[in-house]
Amino acid sequence: MSRFAQALQDASRQASACIEAALEGAEGPVSDAMIYATEGGKGLRGFLVLETARLHGIEASDAVPAAAAIEALHAYSLVHDDLPCMDDDDLRRGRPTVHRKWDEATAVLAGDALQTLAFELVVQTTCADAGRLHLVRTLATASGVRGMVGGQALDIAAETADVPLTLDKIINLQAGKTGALIEWAATAGPHMAQADAKPLGQYARDLGLAFQIADDILDVEGDAATVGKAVGKDADAGKATFVSLLGLDGAKERAHSLVEAACDVLTPYGSDADTLREAAQFVVTRES
Amino acid sequence: MSRFAQALQDASRQASACIEAALEGAEGPVSDAMIYATEGGKGLRGFLVLETARLHGIEASDAVPAAAAIEALHAYSLVHDDLPCMDDDDLRRGRPTVHRKWDEATAVLAGDALQTLAFELVVQTTCADAGRLHLVRTLATASGVRGMVGGQALDIAAETADVPLTLDKIINLQAGKTGALIEWAATAGPHMAQADAKPLGQYARDLGLAFQIADDILDVEGDAATVGKAVGKDADAGKATFVSLLGLDGAKERAHSLVEAACDVLTPYGSDADTLREAAQFVVTRES
Repeated sequence: MSRFAQALQDASRQASACIEAALEGAEGPVSDAMIYATEGGKGLRGFLVLETARLHGIEASDAVPAAAAIEALHAYSLVHDDLPCMDDDDLRRGRPTVHRKWDEATAVLAGDALQTLAFELVVQTTCADAGRLHLVRTLATASGVRGMVGGQALDIAAETADVPLTLDKIINLQAGKTGALIEWAATAGPHMAQADAKPLGQYARDLGLAFQIADDILDVEGDAATVGKAVGKDADAGKATFVSLLGLDGAKERAHSLVEAACDVLTPYGSDADTLREAAQFVVTRES
Repeated sequence: MSRFAQALQDASRQASACIEAALEGAEGPVSDAMIYATEGGKGLRGFLVLETARLHGIEASDAVPAAAAIEALHAYSLVHDDLPCMDDDDLRRGRPTVHRKWDEATAVLAGDALQTLAFELVVQTTCADAGRLHLVRTLATASGVRGMVGGQALDIAAETADVPLTLDKIINLQAGKTGALIEWAATAGPHMAQADAKPLGQYARDLGLAFQIADDILDVEGDAATVGKAVGKDADAGKATFVSLLGLDGAKERAHSLVEAACDVLTPYGSDADTLREAAQFVVTRES
C-alpha cells in the first residue's frame, strides 16, 4: 500500500471514529442515517486536513475534529443533493441513498443534522482560539450561498437553462460546488498553525478543478458498479460538462496539467509533501 | 407601544438588516428565498439575545450578529419543516411557504444556506474569543440531533406511532424542537459577558415550554388568517398535544404558571428585567 493510500485509510478511520463518538447515545433513524451517510467515502477531504496539519507540525489527534467536520459537511451535501427534488439519485457509494433506504424526511433531517455536526466538531479542533474561529468562519463561507450551496444552485439552474453553460461558467460553478470545501480542507493545516496558507490554497484550487474534471470523465467512462453511483446522467440530460466542452482527450489533458501545477506549487515543502503529490495523482486516476 | 413591543420591533429590524447585509451581492432564487424566509417573523429569539445582552451591559451592535444568527437558524428550521415530506404546509407567517413560492429544491437549498449563514454570523459577534467559541458550540448542540433536529425527528415519529405520546414525552420533544433554541437565545447575553447563565437558562426553559403550550392552544383557538399558518392540524391528525392531554383550561393554567415561574427567576435582575417579564406574558397572550 502506498504512503498515500495508507494515509487516506487512516484519515477515514479517524474521522469516522470521531463522528461515531460524537453521535454516541443518540438514538433513532436520523442518527443511524447520519452514520450511514458518512460511511464508505474516499475520505479525501479529511485526509487533506490531517496531511496539511502534519505538514505544519500538528498532531493528528489535534486535527481529527476538523477532518471529521469536513467529512460530515460533505456527507450532508451528498444526502441533500441525492433527494428526489434535487438530483434524484438512488445509489451513492455503492449503496441505496438515504432517502431510498429510509425516507425523504429522514434524509432532510439527517443532512441538516450532519451540517450542524460539522460546526459542532470543528470548534473541538485543538489549536489557538483565533485559529478555531478562523476554521468556523471559513467553513461557513465555503459551505454557504457564496460557496457550495451557491454552486449547487447554479448547477440546478443550468439544467433548465436554454443555453448550455460556457467553460468559464462551469469552472465558476465547480469552484463553489466542489472547490470551496476542498480548499478549506487543504488549508486547514496552515490555518491551525497560523501559517501562510497561500501555497496550499493554490494547490487546492488546482486539485479541486482536476477533481471535478475527473468526475465528468468518470460519468462518461466509468461503470456504475465501480463508481458507486449512477453514470451517464450528464450526457442523458444534455448538460454541458468539461467533457462536452473540451472533448474526452482535452478534458484528460486539462486534468493532468492541473495536477502538475498542483504538485509544482508544493515545492517549498520539499519531499515532505510527497503524499499530497500522490493525492493529486490519485484524484485524476481514481475509478470511483 | 410597550417597552417590550418596541424592543421586539427594534431587534427584528436589526437582525433583518444584518442578514440582508450578509447576503448583499448574492444573486439568484436561493438568496432571494433566504431573505423571504427571514421576513415577517415575531423576532422573539433575536430579541432575547439583544435583551439579555443589554442586561449584561453589552451594546446592541456587538450582539446583533448573534441575534441575526438565531433568526437565520430558526428560519431554516421553518423552511425545512414546511417541506412536503415533512409537515407539508402551504402557509407560513401569512404568506406562501418557500417551496410553494419557489420549488422544493430551492427550499432545501435556502434552508441549508440559512443554517450555514447562522454559523457565519454567530462568529461575527463582538466578545472575547472564548465567548464566541462558546456561542458556536452551544448553537450547534442546540440545533442538532440532540436538540432541535432530534425534537423534530421525535415529532415525525409520533405521527406514525401506534400509541399517542405521554405528557413527559411531549415535554421532552418540545424541549428539543423549540426549547433548545430559545434557551440558547436567552443565555447568549450572559455567555457573551462570561457571566452566570443559570437564572436566564431557567427563565428560558419555562418560557420555551409556555411558548409551545400556547402554540397548541392557538392551533385549537386561533384562526389561520391571524396565526399566519394552518391551524387545527394537530386535532385532525389525532396528535397528542398539551391541549389533548391537559384540556384547554388545564393547558392555559399550565402556561400561565410557567410564565409566573419564569418571571420569578428574574428577581436577581430587579426591574431591569421588566422587558423580559413582558416577553413572558406576550408568549402566552399572543394571537400568532
